Amino acid sequence: MNIEMIRAAALRLNGHARKTPLLTSPFLDKIAGRRVLLKPECLQHTGSFKFRGAWSAVSSLTNEQLDAGVIAFSSGNHAQGVALAAREHDTAAVIIMPRDAPALKINNTRALGAEVVLYDRASEDRDQIGSELAAQRGLTLIKPYDEPQVIAGQGTTGLEIAAQAAELGVTQGDVMVCCGGGGLTSGVALALEADAPGLRARPVEPENYDDVTRSLISGQIERNVITQNGLCDAIVTPQPGDLTFPILHRLCGPGVVVTEDEALKAMVLAWGRLKIVLEPGGAVGLAAALFHRDAIEGDAVIAVASGGNVDAPVFQMALTKFGDIL
Amino acid sequence: MNIEMIRAAALRLNGHARKTPLLTSPFLDKIAGRRVLLKPECLQHTGSFKFRGAWSAVSSLTNEQLDAGVIAFSSGNHAQGVALAAREHDTAAVIIMPRDAPALKINNTRALGAEVVLYDRASEDRDQIGSELAAQRGLTLIKPYDEPQVIAGQGTTGLEIAAQAAELGVTQGDVMVCCGGGGLTSGVALALEADAPGLRARPVEPENYDDVTRSLISGQIERNVITQNGLCDAIVTPQPGDLTFPILHRLCGPGVVVTEDEALKAMVLAWGRLKIVLEPGGAVGLAAALFHRDAIEGDAVIAVASGGNVDAPVFQMALTKFGDIL
Repeated sequence: MNIEMIRAAALRLNGHARKTPLLTSPFLDKIAGRRVLLKPECLQHTGSFKFRGAWSAVSSLTNEQLDAGVIAFSSGNHAQGVALAAREHDTAAVIIMPRDAPALKINNTRALGAEVVLYDRASEDRDQIGSELAAQRGLTLIKPYDEPQVIAGQGTTGLEIAAQAAELGVTQGDVMVCCGGGGLTSGVALALEADAPGLRARPVEPENYDDVTRSLISGQIERNVITQNGLCDAIVTPQPGDLTFPILHRLCGPGVVVTEDEALKAMVLAWGRLKIVLEPGGAVGLAAALFHRDAIEGDAVIAVASGGNVDAPVFQMALTKFGDIL
Repeated sequence: MNIEMIRAAALRLNGHARKTPLLTSPFLDKIAGRRVLLKPECLQHTGSFKFRGAWSAVSSLTNEQLDAGVIAFSSGNHAQGVALAAREHDTAAVIIMPRDAPALKINNTRALGAEVVLYDRASEDRDQIGSELAAQRGLTLIKPYDEPQVIAGQGTTGLEIAAQAAELGVTQGDVMVCCGGGGLTSGVALALEADAPGLRARPVEPENYDDVTRSLISGQIERNVITQNGLCDAIVTPQPGDLTFPILHRLCGPGVVVTEDEALKAMVLAWGRLKIVLEPGGAVGLAAALFHRDAIEGDAVIAVASGGNVDAPVFQMALTKFGDIL
């Protein structure tokens, strides 16, 4: 895993992934006590950065692999990213989803052309179903984060941040990244190391799911005890990846842990001040930038908003609970 | 009023206004029955295209005028655009607002550095207050639409659309523009005439406020009988402007009138499929593209989303009423 793979992924993504802008608001600057630059990956195709990694992985397959198709396990953003990337490569995508996943997510994934295979969480073994299907049809598994070409695709976010922040005169500071398995954070960290060495990636996690923050402190992979997924489901994973953790450990600053209420407040502020839609897990980076100012160094802070795939009731709850923050 | 003024405004806006992207979604294409490209001016500074015209007007003032300051009448998007443009030019802005304007809008305008002068709609004469202040302090009035440099600034939206649509292979089709006094629509129409002659501007209005649509049919300026502003308050004006109407008449296709419910549905789809926040008046262009397909010609349609400054209760109402459209 190296910067050349990220640059190669950027060439493959060119004209296919969206180059998201860097957004700013004087109102957010005031709350944060410094300049805030936000990278809104909610505006990426399929509503999250996951499309970058999916496109990178699918576009690096051989013709033989593309003829057979791809497979992924996901009930969320990775599923939609892989489905769209596969469709645009004219290859088949099989997505294994739990039967109790939200109907909208299942419908969206199907509408993007994927074959959705549902399984029962209680009685069926997801990995077994996937392995059998993959073997039977020669499908290539696209892992959500612990896969070099996926990390390379997510890292293109970091290349764009380096260039766009420099245009705005920002070359020093922390980059707050919503962190689950660490694919986005490690890719961004590698890109910043090469193109913006004054910018430092900081993993941000929701409370109770702070495996990366604890792993960075102990220097070894620590696990979450996950009892339920919480509001920030998009970035809840059991532990950092075997590929991502060494990169995070080498390059990232300390992790920051935010509360669910802070994530909801960041969603409301992004809605009101930047006119973008974030999901709770996609808002933790901005929440850290706004509400954990003492944990951050420098005159400017950059936050990556990783996605915006949120159900209407959760979004309405955030507006009801914290609409008066505006 | 000509294309050279728009090109000159684009140079002045460069590095100050945001070049908004063109967004797409396969889900919207399906509803519209053709490709849909959306220009999200809600992502512009201050949350609407009005910043472009305000910047254009303020940046064309003489040093003497800048020393004295500017004045505007507005309870909405124009107020915030003028306030921010003035602040970034280090010039004073006085904004005359009705005392019963939403507190959030008054606070935002003040927070952007403007001096807000409140008046009582029932007992005081807005124009008299403004004239007295302007005379007393030598302030320059920045009109919301019937002013060449304002039209020139709004027209930069059209220059960007012409270039961005061509990159996506779209050079023929209708461009649905949210239309109040016609500043944005006439500016976009002039820009398209020069840079994308296969694209045609179409004014879109909410029902009961279809002065432009009727004026285009009759060939002369027709008035609305405005009893209340309705949900689409941002684009409700009594009649097309003296400067804007001849441009609209010469260059635009027929107007399209949408219902408030169609605007709310477009807001929900923009929220769910593009992850952006629109106000009702800012959503009528997209509503026309999605729900009036028979009124539109071509394989692709472009919609301009003019702004996203909406109060939380209205936004929640839209999600409650039409959330199941996703």
